[in-house]
Amino acid sequence: MYFLGVDGGGTKTQIILADENENVIGVSFTGPTYIRSVFGDTLKKTLEEGIFFAIQNSHLKDVKIARSCFGIAGLDSPSDFAEVLKIVKSITSVRLDPHPLILNDAVCALRRGTNKGYGISIVAGTGSNCYARSKFGAETFVGGLGHTLSDEGGGYFVGLNVLHAASKSFDGRIEKTILEEMVYEEFGVLSMRDLLSKVYRDGFGKMEIARLSILCEEANEKGDAKAHEILQSAAKELVLMVKTGAKKLDMILDEFDLVCVGGSFKREHGPIRKFFEKEIKENLKRANIIYPVNEPAMGAVLIAIDRYKVLKR
Amino acid sequence: MYFLGVDGGGTKTQIILADENENVIGVSFTGPTYIRSVFGDTLKKTLEEGIFFAIQNSHLKDVKIARSCFGIAGLDSPSDFAEVLKIVKSITSVRLDPHPLILNDAVCALRRGTNKGYGISIVAGTGSNCYARSKFGAETFVGGLGHTLSDEGGGYFVGLNVLHAASKSFDGRIEKTILEEMVYEEFGVLSMRDLLSKVYRDGFGKMEIARLSILCEEANEKGDAKAHEILQSAAKELVLMVKTGAKKLDMILDEFDLVCVGGSFKREHGPIRKFFEKEIKENLKRANIIYPVNEPAMGAVLIAIDRYKVLKR
Repeated sequence: MYFLGVDGGGTKTQIILADENENVIGVSFTGPTYIRSVFGDTLKKTLEEGIFFAIQNSHLKDVKIARSCFGIAGLDSPSDFAEVLKIVKSITSVRLDPHPLILNDAVCALRRGTNKGYGISIVAGTGSNCYARSKFGAETFVGGLGHTLSDEGGGYFVGLNVLHAASKSFDGRIEKTILEEMVYEEFGVLSMRDLLSKVYRDGFGKMEIARLSILCEEANEKGDAKAHEILQSAAKELVLMVKTGAKKLDMILDEFDLVCVGGSFKREHGPIRKFFEKEIKENLKRANIIYPVNEPAMGAVLIAIDRYKVLKR
Repeated sequence: MYFLGVDGGGTKTQIILADENENVIGVSFTGPTYIRSVFGDTLKKTLEEGIFFAIQNSHLKDVKIARSCFGIAGLDSPSDFAEVLKIVKSITSVRLDPHPLILNDAVCALRRGTNKGYGISIVAGTGSNCYARSKFGAETFVGGLGHTLSDEGGGYFVGLNVLHAASKSFDGRIEKTILEEMVYEEFGVLSMRDLLSKVYRDGFGKMEIARLSILCEEANEKGDAKAHEILQSAAKELVLMVKTGAKKLDMILDEFDLVCVGGSFKREHGPIRKFFEKEIKENLKRANIIYPVNEPAMGAVLIAIDRYKVLKR
């Protein structure tokens, strides 16, 4: 019996095929499926190919999927869910179950790191999102409204601040930061003039900006004050999201699992983790911080298995 | 003898036909010509139509333009200037002079407000830009690198902060601000859910965001603390630009004309003006703040006339 889980983000999507004992049987990576950037046919094609390759990667023949779960970033309104469900149901080249689950990726992120059935998840990838569920089943989201409305603390947010810092360093509005030279190097240009023609050219977008968050961590390690400030403010925004979620569900004083996923939390001794942990310990004393080590799409797989067991089909 | 001046910004472009005594003979308004958003054929068409209508508006027959000056936002690298010059020279349906001047709009903004030949101009329209010229002819730009790299303090910057504030007010990350309800009303939606589908739809861009700066001023007047904070920080960014320009050219202690143009400075008792003036008086005691009352494109017209007189052709 096989289960399919999808973790769809702004930069990439992971798809996992697993058995009922949670063993990964096949994996694939494909492009972004963040529904505020990827729509209709492109979304269908990306998911279809990803599922096909995950099944192919398993080397199994004629796989029947018992239950699937799609955790997709940016899913928000009922019409979003309906649209993605329609797209998933239109995939006929691979054999999916007749009742795919469509969820916001932050919901799957929570399940990825805890089996308690409640807690808070914070996603800091290209964008950011926070999901909280109380012991009593109440739910809430904080942030997760995309790069125009929120995304504070995510990679895009950090990268944009890096670009602003580089500009201000260039024209003397702030003290020189090594971020300026690092940005030039990253994009293979010699000056701000050349950078301008890269940045305002077609094809330069959210992903290119989000990638600069890695560079910001490097600059911070080299002792750059501006990089430190940017990362600290990103961590503060993530903490504010968690704190707001906990407050809304009256969980501030409770013990709960806080599941932290996404690129920003990836590095064990990374600065965002360090700043984040410090602030969480001050604000939510009984939160149990978890950085899941399983694969990103395992949250969706676990939900698919849970649902199968509960519904016995 | 007639002179043509162009003031091209991120939201609109004004074109003026004037005589040698600086009398406005014809005016037209056309779409944006900001060269980081509008390129090639679209730019040509916008300029061509604008010039045509300005001439038509003058009710003169067979106008010969002695000299023209194009002040265009976003002009930066030598290749930008070359490209716009090529576009302008390719306009053959109206009779332009053989030697059009192509300048950054901030350079024309300075001339619009002063005839001293030196000083600082600050443009706060959709984007922002600062240009400084010393008594000794040294020049520098601060900011003006477009919405991805800078544009701090401009309408887009303010509007983006309004959207972020509305999101944070919606999900409880900050105290309720009337900006949230005002944003819903502005876009004719009832909730954040509906706003999401507007914001991430094709056709929602910089102009729609920049327009929210007006709303921010209204909220400030109603006593909203968040709106106050956003406008104050925008003014601070504009002051930082001016201060940096003055510092780079060693003009901090000098007396000079500070020419302030663009939508943000439009309202005589507007909050940005108020915050800006307060900070300028503290930082650049001898700066003589000027809000020109002539038409935006008059700066370009005056430069065209100056140049004609100097070169006698």
